[in-house]
Amino acid sequence: MIRVPIQVRYNDYDDRGHVNNAVYLTYFELGRVAAWRALAHGTQPSFILAESRVSYRSPATPGVPLAVEVFAGEVRTKAWVWRYRVVDERDDRLVADGETTQVMYDYAARRTVEIPAALRAALGAL
Amino acid sequence: MIRVPIQVRYNDYDDRGHVNNAVYLTYFELGRVAAWRALAHGTQPSFILAESRVSYRSPATPGVPLAVEVFAGEVRTKAWVWRYRVVDERDDRLVADGETTQVMYDYAARRTVEIPAALRAALGAL
Amino acid sequence: MIRVPIQVRYNDYDDRGHVNNAVYLTYFELGRVAAWRALAHGTQPSFILAESRVSYRSPATPGVPLAVEVFAGEVRTKAWVWRYRVVDERDDRLVADGETTQVMYDYAARRTVEIPAALRAALGAL
Amino acid sequence: MIRVPIQVRYNDYDDRGHVNNAVYLTYFELGRVAAWRALAHGTQPSFILAESRVSYRSPATPGVPLAVEVFAGEVRTKAWVWRYRVVDERDDRLVADGETTQVMYDYAARRTVEIPAALRAALGAL
Repeated sequence: MIRVPIQVRYNDYDDRGHVNNAVYLTYFELGRVAAWRALAHGTQPSFILAESRVSYRSPATPGVPLAVEVFAGEVRTKAWVWRYRVVDERDDRLVADGETTQVMYDYAARRTVEIPAALRAALGAL
Repeated sequence: MIRVPIQVRYNDYDDRGHVNNAVYLTYFELGRVAAWRALAHGTQPSFILAESRVSYRSPATPGVPLAVEVFAGEVRTKAWVWRYRVVDERDDRLVADGETTQVMYDYAARRTVEIPAALRAALGAL
Repeated sequence: MIRVPIQVRYNDYDDRGHVNNAVYLTYFELGRVAAWRALAHGTQPSFILAESRVSYRSPATPGVPLAVEVFAGEVRTKAWVWRYRVVDERDDRLVADGETTQVMYDYAARRTVEIPAALRAALGAL
Repeated sequence: MIRVPIQVRYNDYDDRGHVNNAVYLTYFELGRVAAWRALAHGTQPSFILAESRVSYRSPATPGVPLAVEVFAGEVRTKAWVWRYRVVDERDDRLVADGETTQVMYDYAARRTVEIPAALRAALGAL
């Protein structure tokens, strides 16, 4: 599991004083970038996003310190799932969770490719 | 069905020249606001978002005119689903689709409530 | 002058129910992209932004329809100024104004260049 | 002076791989929120933003660690200036600088007010 504290921005909140629904995908992305960096040792992202899902569990209001956690999900031949939790850092209250599906992609050849074995092992062990 | 042309912003694109994954939830929101306005006749949004899902079907690059469409989904006692399609306006190519689940909410009483009958009928007929 | 209606997004507002200060530069950008398209006949943007300035005149709250206007400013050898007004479309009330300075730039040669004469004339006549 | 490391987000970059011009005002805001918290001892923001200015000095590309610095500027009876520098954390290279003008505001009474003496002293000493 990778855990990343989130630097919440003032305009992440909407006019009800809650983090806007779309911003959670940006928080997931902060976790995903950190997870990729940890697992892929500095290589450029070579995947495309196929699907995202967010469940809103409890609102996050101004002043609440947030963190995003990334967990291993299913790893297939060419695709894998990452699962996420956004939590209140003070008490681990669940604010949102969800998952994204990534497909390994060769940007030069412009086609999907198989996940290399070493990366597959690392993805499963996150 | 409600269809809303999207005014794409330059910073919707990421450094690969594709609309960023999180921005699609903002596009869905443009459709949702228009759908609510059409169905609820100017009353304030009195629902909370429970879940969002996006499937990325083909990339949207600069210059591509986009629109978002909102369709009726399942309507339950307190909650309903809206389904979305983001399309290339020139040829209706599917760029992304997905859905969100809304729960009827009384902000004054701070609790979930049943969907009024008139609104339920309108939601189902969208 | 170029005038562009703004499709305001729900998360443009902050938790006081006002359009966030940074978002006005995005509104200016909507006007700038339209102005460039009108003047430069479809060529790619070949300028860099040197400076931005925004004055906040009156708040924009949810439901207020906004438009951005772009006007000619000073045109120098390599640089030019665009001036902006963001207004309430119903009564032309001024919400924000400001300006940006652009420098003509050759991205292939990676250096600033002089503004072509035809473009200079068009910039001055906006 | 207050210095805040910036958690750069993937969609801060535009399709040229540079931090988008509008995002710098969000970076200034991260600094401003931290400066206010340090000086005003936890009281709610009771000012309105009157003006912002950004000068773009050199581009920030993916992977560059950024920080924002906030400095005291002119302090008047009801208004004060904060100055900002956004720098590459590795070598202090200047990426952008600028300033914002704040006006002290009583949100309950809905009018501008004088800066309290203790806060004025703190603002000048930042």
